[in-house]
Amino acid sequence: MNLKEYLAARIARVEAALERWVPAETTPPATIHRAMRYSLFAGGKRVRPVLCIGAAEALGREPRGIEDAACTLEMIHTYSLIHDDLPALDNDDLRRGRPTNHVVFGEAMAILAGDSLLTLAFEVLGKLPHASNDVRARLVAELATASGTVGGMIGGQVHDIEGEGQPPTAELLEQIHRAKTGALLRGSVRMGAIYAGATDDELRSLSAFGEHVGLAFQIVDDILDVEESSETLGKTAGKDQAQQKITFPAVYGLDRSKVMAEHEREAARAAIQPFGVAAEPLLALADFIVKRKA
Amino acid sequence: MNLKEYLAARIARVEAALERWVPAETTPPATIHRAMRYSLFAGGKRVRPVLCIGAAEALGREPRGIEDAACTLEMIHTYSLIHDDLPALDNDDLRRGRPTNHVVFGEAMAILAGDSLLTLAFEVLGKLPHASNDVRARLVAELATASGTVGGMIGGQVHDIEGEGQPPTAELLEQIHRAKTGALLRGSVRMGAIYAGATDDELRSLSAFGEHVGLAFQIVDDILDVEESSETLGKTAGKDQAQQKITFPAVYGLDRSKVMAEHEREAARAAIQPFGVAAEPLLALADFIVKRKA
Repeated sequence: MNLKEYLAARIARVEAALERWVPAETTPPATIHRAMRYSLFAGGKRVRPVLCIGAAEALGREPRGIEDAACTLEMIHTYSLIHDDLPALDNDDLRRGRPTNHVVFGEAMAILAGDSLLTLAFEVLGKLPHASNDVRARLVAELATASGTVGGMIGGQVHDIEGEGQPPTAELLEQIHRAKTGALLRGSVRMGAIYAGATDDELRSLSAFGEHVGLAFQIVDDILDVEESSETLGKTAGKDQAQQKITFPAVYGLDRSKVMAEHEREAARAAIQPFGVAAEPLLALADFIVKRKA
Repeated sequence: MNLKEYLAARIARVEAALERWVPAETTPPATIHRAMRYSLFAGGKRVRPVLCIGAAEALGREPRGIEDAACTLEMIHTYSLIHDDLPALDNDDLRRGRPTNHVVFGEAMAILAGDSLLTLAFEVLGKLPHASNDVRARLVAELATASGTVGGMIGGQVHDIEGEGQPPTAELLEQIHRAKTGALLRGSVRMGAIYAGATDDELRSLSAFGEHVGLAFQIVDDILDVEESSETLGKTAGKDQAQQKITFPAVYGLDRSKVMAEHEREAARAAIQPFGVAAEPLLALADFIVKRKA
């Protein structure tokens, strides 16, 4: 399969869905919609929405309107980046190669833009045009849990903040990363499976895939922060070490971290082997995540 | 009817629901759960959850588990207060007579605590134990719309921020207040009606009631900010004038504002007259909202 073409086609559907759901820059109050769109359409890789669509396709289904559900993952991801970059949190002024949201729109508007994207994600799920109420409710619960404080994204961020400067242990590392990025990536795959009407067995296999991919993603993220330049990453490089973050390279060293990423990719592949050729896009996505350079 | 007893009984159910849904202060990561609970259990009047329950009762129903849905309104309201009080927004250090969330937990944790309450509200709605998937999905859409940027709470906040220092016109005032507090109060009533399985006609009457109560609430809020002390209010008084906010007293003067609040209360009463004696609690709540002193 041609991953580039595959990705381009899926991303185009996700972009179109985001365009439909996010109010236009001219809709009053215009400032907040400009702020939301500034970060949402900043050239993100759309990894989470594409994982969501890929999971449904791995089950041999192409359910109508799945891009509406998938695009809510990008809203959540983007809100978390906007809030993360705030002066009170990571205090970063560069993201995806551009000034961060609060640098352009001010802190007040950046906080509200994050809140708005978070709220809009659930509005879209509650209104999904082509899904049953059963699927709508399940997806709301799934996305909220993956983004929340107990084992979810916010929980991971809090562990991360509290871990700064602490001795980097394997246990703390796992706790942070399983939640901080892992939960939403796993949730992306699960939401696609749920949208497509997966059986319990299918959902279990895809959840395992999502967990391994999530871990691989974070290991690679930690490695890139050490090895790549800010220019390549489009965000400030070397921040983890400067902030004494608990990362895979800090705990295991660079070489072992690379072996671990490879190991997680293999485990991800194994989890979806039962789906055969239909899972090829997901396999290619796992490769893409491990081999990416930014 | 005895409003005090009525309120106490409904509030007790709401408190119990919040206790059940919000992770304990000892659940890791503990800091975020302490921060969430600090603001959530700070002696709020629970006006929105009680309006939600009262709306269901006005239809002659007492649907099981409605307090689970009702308590999500308090989560949204509290998140908005935490974020509103941040230095980048209203920069307030007093709320409900206590130091604001960011003063106690720091700005980073206050931002995340707000995000967490917002996320949890939708998790609860997606999982409502005693509701159908139809009701779950409709409530998610309702709450998200009432809290969002187009005619919802965040939209009102943005209009409010952008209105500071501008000439106080009646048009701008209505735009701000219909959204900033009105939308969530109207949404509270509508969510109770939807939970109770209201017909379209019933929902229309209760929506009108919610709109008038919402407007009355905001007019009284503006009046109290002028007339009462910080001690009575439990938050900084006189801030509206200091920040050149567009308020009812600023546009219409105090006396005319009081007449307008009274007028909205009457309109609210009229909207639910068809429900007869079952609507007595809602009528008493409307009276309470107009006559309150804090």
